[in-house]
Order: sequence, then structure tokens, then C-alpha cells
Amino acid sequence: MSILKKAILPQELVSKLFNYAMSKAKELDIKISIAILDDGGNLAGFIKMDGASLISSQLAQNKAYTAVGFGLPTADWYPIIKDTPSLLHGLVHTDRMTIFGGGCPIFIEEQLVGGIGVSGGTADQDAECAQAALHAIEEL
Amino acid sequence: MSILKKAILPQELVSKLFNYAMSKAKELDIKISIAILDDGGNLAGFIKMDGASLISSQLAQNKAYTAVGFGLPTADWYPIIKDTPSLLHGLVHTDRMTIFGGGCPIFIEEQLVGGIGVSGGTADQDAECAQAALHAIEEL
Amino acid sequence: MSILKKAILPQELVSKLFNYAMSKAKELDIKISIAILDDGGNLAGFIKMDGASLISSQLAQNKAYTAVGFGLPTADWYPIIKDTPSLLHGLVHTDRMTIFGGGCPIFIEEQLVGGIGVSGGTADQDAECAQAALHAIEEL
Amino acid sequence: MSILKKAILPQELVSKLFNYAMSKAKELDIKISIAILDDGGNLAGFIKMDGASLISSQLAQNKAYTAVGFGLPTADWYPIIKDTPSLLHGLVHTDRMTIFGGGCPIFIEEQLVGGIGVSGGTADQDAECAQAALHAIEEL
Repeated sequence: MSILKKAILPQELVSKLFNYAMSKAKELDIKISIAILDDGGNLAGFIKMDGASLISSQLAQNKAYTAVGFGLPTADWYPIIKDTPSLLHGLVHTDRMTIFGGGCPIFIEEQLVGGIGVSGGTADQDAECAQAALHAIEEL
Repeated sequence: MSILKKAILPQELVSKLFNYAMSKAKELDIKISIAILDDGGNLAGFIKMDGASLISSQLAQNKAYTAVGFGLPTADWYPIIKDTPSLLHGLVHTDRMTIFGGGCPIFIEEQLVGGIGVSGGTADQDAECAQAALHAIEEL
Repeated sequence: MSILKKAILPQELVSKLFNYAMSKAKELDIKISIAILDDGGNLAGFIKMDGASLISSQLAQNKAYTAVGFGLPTADWYPIIKDTPSLLHGLVHTDRMTIFGGGCPIFIEEQLVGGIGVSGGTADQDAECAQAALHAIEEL
Repeated sequence: MSILKKAILPQELVSKLFNYAMSKAKELDIKISIAILDDGGNLAGFIKMDGASLISSQLAQNKAYTAVGFGLPTADWYPIIKDTPSLLHGLVHTDRMTIFGGGCPIFIEEQLVGGIGVSGGTADQDAECAQAALHAIEEL
């Protein structure tokens, strides 16, 4: 049996993801919470900007969970399920499942190492912040 | 680093909020539960009128939570999400989220200090009671 | 009715608390998780050092919660309850309650603004990291 | 920033761990549940022998969680905490924490890749089954 290896989400990257996401949030003039989970869905980092809403904490964590849980951006889900009523009315009840923008999977060398979730603006703004955060990976 | 300060929801105000909401409920001839949460989403006060339904307790708390969680009246949510199907089918699954009337954020000097949630009548009646309660702030 | 105000835990301080705690952890050669909660017990920040144990995440958050929940360091609890068997066997069942070192309340200008919890070393080492983090407040 | 890698718990190993643990259980004439979690604390495999008790499922999963959560056999915990009353009365309340035998961390090339938990016999018998399962790693 050969032993497979996987890339690990490093703490240094978590800090950089925070910074890129917050830069974009400042540019958009929104206050966000950012949650970063590792490949096991466990919290690797979290930060809440001054003035971000109370409920953004839960939403950010759920988006990150959904993103790493499937390896897909959360914004992809509505188009996938919209024409299949059983999924549209059913899959959304999955624990922590989020079907609107703001969550992105984090890949290193094509391996899924975690997920980032952003909440505080509109779904589109949150998605923009999460996408901006992923630029941190290019610095690896 | 300058130290920011925030206004605090005082217990004296909580009692006044109760009184205004209950006056309105008597006028409407309904029995309500009233939940008041502070800015951290923690219970600051709760009162159940004689004869209010069992489930009104949970509904009132969830409405207050949603109101303080976003800083918006719960009645605002359906109009916001109704034309964006991903939110209409997705955001409603957020834990404790309530998208019908009866929850209002509480602001003091333009700072969000908490939320009030009312349940026991129709959504419109509950919203009317919550709105009435907010007159207490003018007495500050 | 006069409106009371209280200091707010700023996001800039959260980042500094992380850095001081991690410096001490490196000095002690341990890998820790650090959780910072605001005065409402809501997550304001979280970071997990590379190699910190899975369970340190839960323990750090519980320590921070207990610290802000009572306004006392978690290490103070065992001496307080040890000679009162009803508390020793009873209070420990309080949800998220932690009675060993690693959690400290955060005060700004003598006001309780949050709690920090550290987990990953021994209780004494964790407490040392949490204490070290509090030096960040002197920079305010 | 260099990219760290870690070994992955393969499904083929999970099946072998089951077989070794069940062989030992048959030898001891006990009926067990066996839970195997990956490094993120997520279920990688579970099997319940015919006649194993209902509650053995929960106990096996909690033992596996504690083992991977700290990287230590669950049987090690009582000796570690027995002379430190704050831990003896406090650490045991950690969610899913188990301080008696039957849980073992799983290491591949000195890296923690998961945990195995066994329940159904006495704590000593369960620990014996979990230990026996680990022989599967030598076949890698």
C-alpha cells in the first residue's frame, strides 16, 4: 500500500488570506467576518472587522464549511439545484449548507486544503472578498 | 489605537420596552411573549403575558436575534430576498433567522444596542407591538 | 435615564493579542490555538498554530467563554470551588465552563470587553500565553 | 512559504484496522463497535459487530475523537490528570472527551492521521482490540 500525502493549510497562509479579504472589504466599504477552515472542516482562523454584524460570524463559518465540504464555491450551488425541485427544497436543509456567494474552497497544488467564508456585504460583495483572499495562494 | 465606546442597553429601558409592547398587545387584544437581547445577542429580558402560547417564546427570541444580528427589522427581509432565489431558498436556513414581522433592532444615539422580538399575534400585530415598544427610547 | 457607554474590543487589538500569545508559545516550544471573544461571548478572532491539536480549538473557545462569562481567569475557579463539594461536582457541568488555566478576561479601562482562551500546552503554559497576550493592551 | 505535506489515512487501511480489531474481539469473545476518524476528526469508517450494544457506537466514536484530538491513547488520560484536581474535575467535561481505555491515535511515518475507538467489552478489552488493530499499519 503506498502512502498518499496531502498539502496542509499553513497558519502563515491563513494570516495572508485575512489581509487580502480585509483589503477588498475596505475597498468595497463593507465590514466583514472571515472564517477559514482546514480540510477537516475545523476552524483554522477567524477574524471579525470592527462593526461587522453579529450574524456574519455564523454565516461566514457556514460558507467556509460548505466550500470545503464540497470543494465548490457556494455561489455555484443555486444554479446547480434550481431546476431540480427536490434538491432546491431539500438539499438546502443540509446542516450548515449555504447556497449563495461568499464561500470558496482553498486549493494548494490542486489539492483541497480548506475553505474560506466571508459575510457582511451582499452575497456578490462577500464572494468578491473571498476571491480576493485567494490571491494569497499565489505568494506561496 | 483609540478606544471606541458603545452605548449599553440599560435594564431600566428593558422594563419600559416591556410596558409599551404590552400596552399595545392589550389594545390589540392579543397575548404575547416579548424577548429583548443585548448587542451580543444575549437575553437581556423576557416576559410572557398570561395566556401567551408556548411557542411564542422561541419565536420572540428568534425575531430579536435576527433583528440585532443584522440591525434590521425582521419584516424587511422578505422584500429584500424575494427576487433573489438563492437567498429566498438559502438565507432562511440560517440558524434562528426570521423573515416575517415582529423583530426590531434597538438603536440608542444611532448605535445598535440590541433587538426586541414579539410573538403571539399575526406577524403584523407582532410588528406593531415591537414598533410601539421603541417609543420607550424617546424617553431616554 | 443616562446612557452608559462601554469600551469595545477593537479588531486591531485582536491581531496584537494573537501575536503576543504566539510569541510566548514559540518561546515555550508549544503549538496553541487562541480564541478571542467579545463582551457578548461572540467570536472576535481565532487562530490555530501549525501542529496545534484538533481538540485545542474547542478548549480555547471554552476557556475564553468562561473568562468573559465571569470576568475571572479560568485558573481562579478550582481554588474557589474546591472546598464546596456541591460546586466542585455541580458548577463544572455549566455549559462550556472551564476550571483550569488558559483563559483570561480582557479589560480596557477597567471595563470587561472580552476574553482570551489558549490551549495546546499544559494548563500553566496556556495561562502563561494568555497572560502574555494581555501585554497588547498596554499598547492601546 | 514552503508547502508542508502530511500522510493520509487510506480507506484500504481502515478495512484492515477493522479486521484486526474484530479478530481480537472474537478471541476475547466480546461484541464491539469500531470507529475510525481521520485527522480532522471526521468519520472514516465504522462497523458494529452483530450483538454489539447500542451505546457502544457513541462510546467508540468518542474514544476515537479523543485519541485523534490529542494524539494520545485514551487510557493515558486518567494517570495524567489524577493528581491535578482541576483537570480531574474539569477536563472530563470537554465535549466527547473519554479518559478510559479503548481509543488509540493512528500514526503513519510519525504523523497523526487519525484515531480508532473500540467499545463493547471492558475498558481493558477495548484497549486490547484497538492496540491489535494498529498492527495493520505495519503492513503498509
